[in-house]
Amino acid sequence: MSRVVKLAVIPGDGIGPEVVAEAVKVLDAVTAASDVTFEKTPFSLGAGRYLETGDTLTDDDLSAIAGHDAILLGAVGGVPGDPRLKDANIERGLLLKLRFELDHYVNLRPSKLYPGATGPLAEPGDIDFVVVREGTEGPYVGNGGSIRRGTAHEVANETSVNTAYGVERVVRYAFALAERRRHKLTLVHKTNVLVHAGGMWKRIVDAVAQEFPGVDVDYLHVDAATIFLVTNPSRFDVIVTDNLFGDILTDLAGAVTGGIGLAASGNINPDGAFPSMFEPVHGSAPDIAGTQKADPTAAILSVALLLDHLGLTDESARVTRAVEDDIASRDGVRTTAQIGDAIAERVQA
Amino acid sequence: MSRVVKLAVIPGDGIGPEVVAEAVKVLDAVTAASDVTFEKTPFSLGAGRYLETGDTLTDDDLSAIAGHDAILLGAVGGVPGDPRLKDANIERGLLLKLRFELDHYVNLRPSKLYPGATGPLAEPGDIDFVVVREGTEGPYVGNGGSIRRGTAHEVANETSVNTAYGVERVVRYAFALAERRRHKLTLVHKTNVLVHAGGMWKRIVDAVAQEFPGVDVDYLHVDAATIFLVTNPSRFDVIVTDNLFGDILTDLAGAVTGGIGLAASGNINPDGAFPSMFEPVHGSAPDIAGTQKADPTAAILSVALLLDHLGLTDESARVTRAVEDDIASRDGVRTTAQIGDAIAERVQA
Ligand SMILES: CC(C)[C@H](C(=O)O)[C@@H](O)C(=O)O
Ligand SMILES: CC(C)[C@H](C(=O)O)[C@@H](O)C(=O)O
Repeated sequence: MSRVVKLAVIPGDGIGPEVVAEAVKVLDAVTAASDVTFEKTPFSLGAGRYLETGDTLTDDDLSAIAGHDAILLGAVGGVPGDPRLKDANIERGLLLKLRFELDHYVNLRPSKLYPGATGPLAEPGDIDFVVVREGTEGPYVGNGGSIRRGTAHEVANETSVNTAYGVERVVRYAFALAERRRHKLTLVHKTNVLVHAGGMWKRIVDAVAQEFPGVDVDYLHVDAATIFLVTNPSRFDVIVTDNLFGDILTDLAGAVTGGIGLAASGNINPDGAFPSMFEPVHGSAPDIAGTQKADPTAAILSVALLLDHLGLTDESARVTRAVEDDIASRDGVRTTAQIGDAIAERVQA
Repeated sequence: MSRVVKLAVIPGDGIGPEVVAEAVKVLDAVTAASDVTFEKTPFSLGAGRYLETGDTLTDDDLSAIAGHDAILLGAVGGVPGDPRLKDANIERGLLLKLRFELDHYVNLRPSKLYPGATGPLAEPGDIDFVVVREGTEGPYVGNGGSIRRGTAHEVANETSVNTAYGVERVVRYAFALAERRRHKLTLVHKTNVLVHAGGMWKRIVDAVAQEFPGVDVDYLHVDAATIFLVTNPSRFDVIVTDNLFGDILTDLAGAVTGGIGLAASGNINPDGAFPSMFEPVHGSAPDIAGTQKADPTAAILSVALLLDHLGLTDESARVTRAVEDDIASRDGVRTTAQIGDAIAERVQA
């Protein structure tokens, strides 16, 4: 009755490999005595691979990755301003391509202020919410272009594309999540300016709300939402929002809950047609790469999301609890590996 | 040698009339003994006017307003969800229309943590920066639309339009401002995703930077910028950014500097072809309208920006100083009018 999970592992660039090593360490520890085995296939992708081969994500890479049950990703992206990367766009060509091609329409980003973690707020209150960020539409579709590039008459456009199909499925996911949590859903958009996209989001939320009478719904403009994230973050339970607003809100949310060193995320295809991908919200931080200064906690919490997604809820809870205990007892500076060791030890205890 | 300034006054909705009354009180006080006279013409515009007449901003309104030297605006917008406003979009039809028609390409939003003001951050540090938000382009242009509206096959698009002409002029303004301040300019955009618009912004900033060798330039993605606004806001001097990112960052900036009750703004046409418009960043807050609970400080600081714009730098400085003194000595709850009275008294002292 043993289960095998085929896991694609993309360590990536900068601190990616370091934090992924710890995440895998914890994954191995939590599954050591169980009947599930993770069969890991490493994929060398990112700025490093691009510099070596000129490839960002080939069709072969993509179909190989798509054949797995899940993906664990560290971080991708080279040194900012590296002239050799001038014509590369690792973010669009790799990270966003994976999210789009694998139809990761739910970008799940929990924000929780763990006891012991300290953020920048004087009176943070009880912070525990989840941002459900749409992952396959909006201003991220790449439907832009420019004319007269580089001249005084250049015009550069970016088109945000939003579909009822795409919005409804993520909204429905968010409502179902709210129903399992504190029954509160906040739509964040900018309906007074982006009247077409915002209007559609609003109408769809109002319609789906009929099916979830137990969930309280409210709406905030994105600008107002940033205010509440710093003045009253405990007002939030589930936030549902578009790709770009979700990007912005989750970095801010990470900061108010103690830094993006703790912020995990899942790029989820709830239908299971494609493997879902789990990654820390932080970037590759090339400036501290190789120094063992990175905090692997976000990557480890991403493993907890991955386990939960695979239905391994016990294992997931054990990872989360180990992280919570570790955060609560932090003092002094530890290396990336020391944090990973400490958490791995706790999951086995 | 007396100078007459023709000022269009748009009190608007909700708390707008209350805060504008105090702003005008302070304007009158600071110019009482000087040789400049403000000739004020009130314009009844906003949700109230729309409900009475069905008009949002007529061509006659617009040309009458355009004939003035400057505009003072309170806040516009009715009660959220008011069914009678379902088909109105006061924000687009009035506020944004004024900004676009009067070519307010610089939306100037200073953020300062005044001694005595308290924000949500535990260790705010020295906060004193200005956001130069582009005001006439980007995702705000209203070039969107939808097909199959209301069906399961709806597609809703929003197009962000950006021109070299429009970006260069606001970037140039921001550099000139940085040169008069602490010589630091931060471009905020999302170049890794919005490659066309972001790429153009980046190239133009790099080009204009050549003319301002004394100004240090850096770049942040909008998501990272929100992190720094709560973890290290004193790193900022001048931020230049697009219309939507500027909207988001300035609400957040208002929150970290003690609330948007203190955040002033100017919608500026630096060329002087059209009157510039000064307004608090906050909205009409219909829930507290008429209760004298609104803080008129943001409106009063908008008067300081207005005076400065008109070259009345002494008067402007006196208003700012009076506000600073008032904030530093705040204790207990005061009405809107009491705050206005206190500041008006100080400017005359
Ligand atoms: C790297 C970038 C393309 C990405 C995004 O904008 O989605 C990142 O900021 C994130 O939030 O995962
Ligand atoms: C009311 C709204 C259209 C406006 C904006 O988005 O510009 C407001 O939020 C602001 O910042 O002045």
